[in-house]
Amino acid sequence: MNYSETISFNTKGEIEIVNVTDNVARIVKKSGIKNGIGCVFVPGSTGAITTIEYEPGLLQDLPEALERLFPKNIEYRHHETWHDGNGHSHVRASVIGPGLTVPIKNGNLTLGTWQQIVFVELDVRKRKREIIVQIIGE
Amino acid sequence: MNYSETISFNTKGEIEIVNVTDNVARIVKKSGIKNGIGCVFVPGSTGAITTIEYEPGLLQDLPEALERLFPKNIEYRHHETWHDGNGHSHVRASVIGPGLTVPIKNGNLTLGTWQQIVFVELDVRKRKREIIVQIIGE
Amino acid sequence: MNYSETISFNTKGEIEIVNVTDNVARIVKKSGIKNGIGCVFVPGSTGAITTIEYEPGLLQDLPEALERLFPKNIEYRHHETWHDGNGHSHVRASVIGPGLTVPIKNGNLTLGTWQQIVFVELDVRKRKREIIVQIIGE
Repeated sequence: MNYSETISFNTKGEIEIVNVTDNVARIVKKSGIKNGIGCVFVPGSTGAITTIEYEPGLLQDLPEALERLFPKNIEYRHHETWHDGNGHSHVRASVIGPGLTVPIKNGNLTLGTWQQIVFVELDVRKRKREIIVQIIGE
Repeated sequence: MNYSETISFNTKGEIEIVNVTDNVARIVKKSGIKNGIGCVFVPGSTGAITTIEYEPGLLQDLPEALERLFPKNIEYRHHETWHDGNGHSHVRASVIGPGLTVPIKNGNLTLGTWQQIVFVELDVRKRKREIIVQIIGE
Repeated sequence: MNYSETISFNTKGEIEIVNVTDNVARIVKKSGIKNGIGCVFVPGSTGAITTIEYEPGLLQDLPEALERLFPKNIEYRHHETWHDGNGHSHVRASVIGPGLTVPIKNGNLTLGTWQQIVFVELDVRKRKREIIVQIIGE
């Protein structure tokens, strides 16, 4: 069996971390699939999907780490192509990755107690985002 | 068809890299699934799953790289919430990622000769870990 | 249903970014699977799979970011084991990750308009690479 749904929302721009765990869990329930996997994926190259403990401290720590590692205000060649000032967004997205696959057991995502599935808006401007959730199993 | 099992072990704390390849391969065999995928996932937000050539040099190089990129002794806001001193563990885990999906062909994981599936303990203390392995296919 | 194929190519060495999107899309079509997932994986521990907007600027920006984060010319213990000078390649590969899972809807990968699936050659020398594509669904 397989079942798919899209989660849609607007982001406020750099760096918003959106907790989509409840949305994904609801889609798992709706699918009727008890055991299998859930694949969560962002179409687009300036956003990422990962997990994090969703608490206010880490929602600042992750962006600060990304700024240290991939500074916004250094030279990116991408700007020569598009002049949209988001070269750092693209590079961050490629390193974190656009998707995540989570096992499902007895109708539930096998997440840790404090572990949440998040979309990370890495682009420099507001975006309308659509996240694909694909459930496969029995 | 789908089949699931949990791998349990204790870690010694920061940074232990646990080779779970043989455990995952054994679960693939037990599943009877010949062609499909194996999804390996850690419930929890201070551990990660990836692959590496499991040799003593790299078991030091990866931790040293993580310490350069996400130093332990800088300020993390996460500490204001929990005072558990593992802000860097969480950020590292979000960037590496909590899971991995590997194709299965003829009953075998399609890993490279030297490529091993590992759990990376990023937390600062000893943990009891349970890794979920979900096999899907035919 | 499930279907698998291998994509083979030669790389020129560090850091070549190979766009495999059309190959993966063709394998999805050939599979006849309309809804499900596609898992793209590199056997080997010095290459990575991710997505990126495949334009000349970013093809320089990603390598430059990796060199800033994981410099080639610092000490790696891996060299003491093998003397092959690619310790940085291994560490980069473990952080980016060896695989990617993408949802399939109506026979198409759910990629963004500018988002391409790429193999990143992180090794220091030319390699013959085989990428596994496993399609699962209905």
